Amino acid sequence: MANSMELWFTELQNSNLSIGLRVNRTLHSEQTEFQSLDVVETVQYGRMLVLDGCVMTTDKDEFVYHEMLAHVGLHTHPEPKNVLVVGGGDGGVIREIVKHPAVERAVLAEIDGRVIDISREYFPQIAQGLNDPRVDVQVCDGIKHVQEHKGEYDVIYVDSTDPIGPAVGLFAKDFYQAVYDALKPDGLFVAQTESPFANQDLIRHVHRDVRDIFPHTYLYLAHIPTYPTGMWSFTMGSKQYNPLEPVASRVRDTKYYTTEVHKAAFALPPFVQELVQK
Amino acid sequence: MANSMELWFTELQNSNLSIGLRVNRTLHSEQTEFQSLDVVETVQYGRMLVLDGCVMTTDKDEFVYHEMLAHVGLHTHPEPKNVLVVGGGDGGVIREIVKHPAVERAVLAEIDGRVIDISREYFPQIAQGLNDPRVDVQVCDGIKHVQEHKGEYDVIYVDSTDPIGPAVGLFAKDFYQAVYDALKPDGLFVAQTESPFANQDLIRHVHRDVRDIFPHTYLYLAHIPTYPTGMWSFTMGSKQYNPLEPVASRVRDTKYYTTEVHKAAFALPPFVQELVQK
Repeated sequence: MANSMELWFTELQNSNLSIGLRVNRTLHSEQTEFQSLDVVETVQYGRMLVLDGCVMTTDKDEFVYHEMLAHVGLHTHPEPKNVLVVGGGDGGVIREIVKHPAVERAVLAEIDGRVIDISREYFPQIAQGLNDPRVDVQVCDGIKHVQEHKGEYDVIYVDSTDPIGPAVGLFAKDFYQAVYDALKPDGLFVAQTESPFANQDLIRHVHRDVRDIFPHTYLYLAHIPTYPTGMWSFTMGSKQYNPLEPVASRVRDTKYYTTEVHKAAFALPPFVQELVQK
Repeated sequence: MANSMELWFTELQNSNLSIGLRVNRTLHSEQTEFQSLDVVETVQYGRMLVLDGCVMTTDKDEFVYHEMLAHVGLHTHPEPKNVLVVGGGDGGVIREIVKHPAVERAVLAEIDGRVIDISREYFPQIAQGLNDPRVDVQVCDGIKHVQEHKGEYDVIYVDSTDPIGPAVGLFAKDFYQAVYDALKPDGLFVAQTESPFANQDLIRHVHRDVRDIFPHTYLYLAHIPTYPTGMWSFTMGSKQYNPLEPVASRVRDTKYYTTEVHKAAFALPPFVQELVQK
């Protein structure tokens, strides 16, 4: 057999670090109003959504990010009825949220409608939750949405891209204050906050800011192979509830989340503890 | 300023997945009797030891692997006096082992003496434990060493390269039986066993084999950014002691290990549990 062309996707994760994935073919490429958007089929991880050159999600490892973003928060709040996702246009976090019977309404506030359209088309398994009758999909500026809905939500998720381009405002102190104000008196929020190996300054500043606003601040970890360094962090700001005492699991058929994994995710190595200490 | 040449190290982690690290310069390259050996200076992780093209260790993230290999086993055994490391010529696991006052003797059985020499020269911070008076450095075939020392050790570590080249025999059932025989009646062993995302068949077969030999078998996890997928597994076979009930921490100044991290490392996501079920 003659050699055939090999295609590789390379993400330059910072100026000194890259991940490479062999690609069968490119399924879609466009420049949206907000960012570049590509869908490629990788050999290792199946289909992959890429925004501004960064891996957002893949068919084979998406379950980690979406389960660990959604379920830790929803198992910390005893009765989460009203939930908001800022970003998250692929629908993966919504898919996990609607597994919770307590949830009466889940709003998705995604700024880039093309992410939603493309996810419905190329990632139907991930986007499926968007069709749940409790879900209200809004193509809008999540920052503005948060500012305009005070005291309304039990749980707010910030499912953002990296803190460049359209997501910069989602890592700002003003935004965390607006999130606080949009929560009910016992509400909590969870945001993805990058890698403790590669984004230490970011985690330090997020925790400084969130601690100034919320009475309780936590960091927890998950293994995500397609994100830089594979060690990913999530930050929770809570007005009342303690994630170290989760309610009994309300979900089945998870591939990553269990109550034990939930608790274990908060056991931080000292080099990570150091990033979030006062 | 004119552009200067950019050097990148690329590890093809399997035929579909690679990691890239920007390199300042190559410090050493040779073909030893057993494998190719390179030392490069990366921008992201400092100096890096590469055997047969695979990342073995780097200055900046070596603490995770070495602490989590050494301390979980040594905090599971109440009185570990005699310890063996098969492989581990860089000295990192030995450095952690000699932090335990209970340890009276630690044998390093490394097949490739050049790994030891080069580590002493280029990774003095990692190799420093090799100079401890309790350490007996032996350049020898670890398999033969294990076969010839029956009932002698409290804890045995298998700190191997990937299961290709010189390390193939370290993932074989015969070897696990020899390890069992080399342990005292209450002994235990720990081996690195690759990634649950990328090496599922390997983990399944190792656990099948170890379970046939040891009364208690466990898997635990750590975040290692320079290893494929960043999620790394360790397998413990124990004749008596339970790693879920570790003794109080005997070490200070760790950057990854704590008693809480020890316990949390055994909380396996369902997709990992599935690999090690009977």
